[in-house]
Amino acid sequence: MNSFSTYPSADVIAEAHNRISPYINRTEVLTSSFFNQQSAASLFFKCENFQKAGAFKSRGAMNAALSLSKEELSAGLATHSSGNHAQALARAAQILGTKAFIIMPRTAPAIKVAAVKSYGGIIHFCEPTLAAREKKLEEIVSETGATFIHPYNDYRIIAGQATACKELLEQVTDEPDYIFCPVGGGGLLSGTALSAAYWSPKTKVIGCEPKGADDAFRSFRSGKFVPSTMPKTVADGLLTSLGDLTFPIILEKVHDILCADEQDIINAMRLVWERMKIIIEPSAAVPLAIALSGQINLKDKSAVIIFSGGNVDLNNLLWA
Amino acid sequence: MNSFSTYPSADVIAEAHNRISPYINRTEVLTSSFFNQQSAASLFFKCENFQKAGAFKSRGAMNAALSLSKEELSAGLATHSSGNHAQALARAAQILGTKAFIIMPRTAPAIKVAAVKSYGGIIHFCEPTLAAREKKLEEIVSETGATFIHPYNDYRIIAGQATACKELLEQVTDEPDYIFCPVGGGGLLSGTALSAAYWSPKTKVIGCEPKGADDAFRSFRSGKFVPSTMPKTVADGLLTSLGDLTFPIILEKVHDILCADEQDIINAMRLVWERMKIIIEPSAAVPLAIALSGQINLKDKSAVIIFSGGNVDLNNLLWA
Repeated sequence: MNSFSTYPSADVIAEAHNRISPYINRTEVLTSSFFNQQSAASLFFKCENFQKAGAFKSRGAMNAALSLSKEELSAGLATHSSGNHAQALARAAQILGTKAFIIMPRTAPAIKVAAVKSYGGIIHFCEPTLAAREKKLEEIVSETGATFIHPYNDYRIIAGQATACKELLEQVTDEPDYIFCPVGGGGLLSGTALSAAYWSPKTKVIGCEPKGADDAFRSFRSGKFVPSTMPKTVADGLLTSLGDLTFPIILEKVHDILCADEQDIINAMRLVWERMKIIIEPSAAVPLAIALSGQINLKDKSAVIIFSGGNVDLNNLLWA
Repeated sequence: MNSFSTYPSADVIAEAHNRISPYINRTEVLTSSFFNQQSAASLFFKCENFQKAGAFKSRGAMNAALSLSKEELSAGLATHSSGNHAQALARAAQILGTKAFIIMPRTAPAIKVAAVKSYGGIIHFCEPTLAAREKKLEEIVSETGATFIHPYNDYRIIAGQATACKELLEQVTDEPDYIFCPVGGGGLLSGTALSAAYWSPKTKVIGCEPKGADDAFRSFRSGKFVPSTMPKTVADGLLTSLGDLTFPIILEKVHDILCADEQDIINAMRLVWERMKIIIEPSAAVPLAIALSGQINLKDKSAVIIFSGGNVDLNNLLWA
């Protein structure tokens, strides 16, 4: 097992990409004349909403799972998540013939519980507190010997998420001026920033966060870790704090972090559905909301927008 | 002006494709491991929901507009449609710097009226009867000298719609066993059947119709034109009768016409949204509903499903 005691190198990310390729989608990069007009830029949309299990999380989860020894793998995987990482890890375990133990708050929406179960994940519920979650996780890990795979604060996860940016840089013809990437715990953003630094050094990576959960923005601007406390946003994949592995990479490699208003997130999401005819989740709309907000002058620039996922409850639309 | 007094030939369709290419999207062909599993087939989805103005109709409308003389064009275009053809024709007129006169029943949904207006279309409302529509159209054409472009019963339209199939045959590596194509007035289906006959003769083209508007099915099976009377289906793009130009092509070149239950159409549409994360309209779900229905044994076959459009009212979802 590779201990990944330092930032994933270009080789480590390239190796991760090769390793996970049989199990993930090389997702499309789409363009939209409507959004090009709206932004006065050339925009490229990396569609991780088309990824297996509906989000980029399948990259990191599969890379982490494939980095385990046969013995480790046979004892299973474990994590705490009620979101896309849980589904992605359950899927990775199912494909590799092992178990995934998923700790979820008992308040998790039924649709997310069902999604994890559809991949054969074994769900353990806990009270919706950090303490209860960690206690339950410890219990499960010590009972089963399963390996804990953190949703983002893990170099194997970061290397896996980094493959989305490596891939998109292969798909667009020129080095983009910008990449707009959502940030929650920072797994995708740190990985994206690493890949951009390795394969497209002139590209500026912009972390994109909802104003209602702006801990990464405040951490980045102050240079000191600020935890996410009482976040409130429709972008339910971006509620968490940065990790002690993701934050230093972000501080070093990310150009800036900007924030989006809630209404702009909802508007951007709806415009994508209407104009591009594709389904993205609220978290995935945050980078576009920021790109359209005018906070950066994109006139005649090229920019990649990462659509991080497409898992929504079609019975509960934000604008209904 | 080409009078198109006979079936569009392969050359005419290829010429149409070249002519319209600067103005339309070469739409993606997507695959889905979920639907491959569901069908036991290799399915390819031709995404005309990603087409300009949200549907394949942009192909035919643009081809018809581009086939007019400068004089004809300057007097404008006219049609009766409250659907995707109206939007497509308004867009073609706008791009080519002329007017589009659109006759719509006064009962047309506000969202469709707004869509036509967004492309600069000039709307004339009429009572929701065939007689009122034709009278109003005659008036407008005689007042303005605009050229009437029928939504489907016109060889220029048929040649334009045929380019979707020509294009998809360039995009898939092998000749598919089947193409599943929706049928309303038959513009897309007759064009698809012609292109398949010219460029992939072993492919069987299946016309796909809702049971609640099965006039094409009954016409095809009986060999005699059966009009659409009192159609009732969620697939609101497929309500019309065949035309005297589309029907003979369909009779000669289409392998079969099959019908889908309403609930299967809704289920197929929702599954596409959930699993493929793309937005298709009800009419576009009819071919998939039929492919999944087991009416044809698709085991180990390859089939193209034409997703004809993606224009839906996001405030009024079928399952809400």
